[in-house]
Amino acid sequence: MKCSICGQPAILNLRHHMLRLCAPHFMEWFPEQVARSIKRYRMFGPQDRILVAVSGGKDSLALWDALLRLGYQADGMYINLGIKERTCHSQTSDGLSQPGDYSGKSLERVRAFAAQRPGARYQVVDVAAEYGLNVPDLARRNHRSAKMCSLCGLVKRHIMNRAAYQGGYAAIATGHNLDDEVATLLQNALHWETGYLARQAPVLPSTHPRLVRKVKPLARMYERDSAAYALVQGIDYIYDECPYAEGAKSIFFKKLFNQIENLSTGTKSQFYLQFLKARQQGRIAFPQLEAGEEDDAPRSLLRDCDKCGQPTSSADLCAFCRLWEET
Amino acid sequence: MKCSICGQPAILNLRHHMLRLCAPHFMEWFPEQVARSIKRYRMFGPQDRILVAVSGGKDSLALWDALLRLGYQADGMYINLGIKERTCHSQTSDGLSQPGDYSGKSLERVRAFAAQRPGARYQVVDVAAEYGLNVPDLARRNHRSAKMCSLCGLVKRHIMNRAAYQGGYAAIATGHNLDDEVATLLQNALHWETGYLARQAPVLPSTHPRLVRKVKPLARMYERDSAAYALVQGIDYIYDECPYAEGAKSIFFKKLFNQIENLSTGTKSQFYLQFLKARQQGRIAFPQLEAGEEDDAPRSLLRDCDKCGQPTSSADLCAFCRLWEET
Repeated sequence: MKCSICGQPAILNLRHHMLRLCAPHFMEWFPEQVARSIKRYRMFGPQDRILVAVSGGKDSLALWDALLRLGYQADGMYINLGIKERTCHSQTSDGLSQPGDYSGKSLERVRAFAAQRPGARYQVVDVAAEYGLNVPDLARRNHRSAKMCSLCGLVKRHIMNRAAYQGGYAAIATGHNLDDEVATLLQNALHWETGYLARQAPVLPSTHPRLVRKVKPLARMYERDSAAYALVQGIDYIYDECPYAEGAKSIFFKKLFNQIENLSTGTKSQFYLQFLKARQQGRIAFPQLEAGEEDDAPRSLLRDCDKCGQPTSSADLCAFCRLWEET
Repeated sequence: MKCSICGQPAILNLRHHMLRLCAPHFMEWFPEQVARSIKRYRMFGPQDRILVAVSGGKDSLALWDALLRLGYQADGMYINLGIKERTCHSQTSDGLSQPGDYSGKSLERVRAFAAQRPGARYQVVDVAAEYGLNVPDLARRNHRSAKMCSLCGLVKRHIMNRAAYQGGYAAIATGHNLDDEVATLLQNALHWETGYLARQAPVLPSTHPRLVRKVKPLARMYERDSAAYALVQGIDYIYDECPYAEGAKSIFFKKLFNQIENLSTGTKSQFYLQFLKARQQGRIAFPQLEAGEEDDAPRSLLRDCDKCGQPTSSADLCAFCRLWEET
């Protein structure tokens, strides 16, 4: 297998792009693709300061790396959710974090990444230190352990937005890749969640001056390409999924979609891009805009939370403050 | 496991309906559900004459049986496509049809079904006898063997419509079940085929006086329920899929959807019914109506085929006549 560009031995066969690349050309190709998505969806400009939500996983670190290499002012933000492994055994022990400490190990990866890149700045918010409880304990106290993933999402969205707004960032960038996007799109289509279908996009514009726009520069990148980039670039990322995500529907639907992709190469990309195109061209429409998450509800429906002041569609407290109030 | 109605031993657990039924109550329940779909979607009235497209498979024979039991004037129509098994081996030999003669064996099932039901009338159209070539040969001559299923669909739609129009039938009823419908809906959603998404429904209304409306009374019935009905009712149907359908995408997507249903019971039903509801309520819309198949294009786009006179959206010949012309 030879590189489509230089003819040297290729390390990757990007079947969906009909492209085979050697390591050096793949290392060029990946950030170029990221840059194309940023331009195509008008995510942000070269002078904008970007806050990258980093988890220690391959996607967010690959994204941060690509943005830095492209010359963007991209700072990292790690939220320590206080998640432990759910078994006593731990596969690695680097002496820095406790065995079984998933969040601690993830943070180590972020620290190591930044230490190797002069000028890479990041901040850490420790949920337990700042609010008194880590996320699993918060879920337990709230009897919402079964909905751990949605509660965790709410916590992360709130904290990310606060940090981005206070830090004066133009956008929050997340590492969602194409596999994440199609798994979500498929689940929304399976239930015809028209409210979510109306909004799913590589860019979630700001609807309020204190809500920071969100962008997904990897939305068109296959997960395996993002993993390959992290590997070839020598990024030490955390391999394991979050222990609470085991058996999560998103993983089921990712595997399911891989079956479809194996049957017909390119369906993943087509499913996502054709959807965006059909919606943009008005061939598919979701006429009745429903109130959505707090961070993407129409401006007219938003007021300030009585406690934290962040915009909310609720009458008194935002969903995040209500969560702590009820605990 | 006991019958939810009478407490006698149940033979079926209809998990998606939270219902367990004994054989006699299942035999009542199935036609009742068919009757409910006919009323709910206003498919046809008690006095209407219906032409049932029967293939010899479980769905179409179960449908025909249920319609007869419900007292409808439902006549059968079998189209002999001239399909042979693609291997030399044949699992059964009943002495009536040639070993390996898939279409012949299917017709035997239709004949046997009708013979056991006094008053059940049916007609047979033999494609080779009437047009000079069977469907596999037609596909071969046209170099369209790879698209056998779509070519076969075109032939069947044309012949069914002609027979239904000439026979003065109010509707053509086909045995499409819920599994068929969701496999199609999923494939259309995966490619955002907005033209097809705009039209997929249990009823395809007539857009022209010479195009007969089409209805799918089993559209809300799980395939396994339709198979169970045929078995319990003692209907001898042809088990094998059409030999050309082996490996067809529709089978792949049916299996795929069964994985989703296993993860979350009722998703199949919800995916289909929520889609119809969202479209009806205007929560999802397909504003740009595109010209579709010949039999569901808007009236304004239709003219008469120069050869057969059936309505077509083409300038001279309808797709069916063009097919034979090009052969």
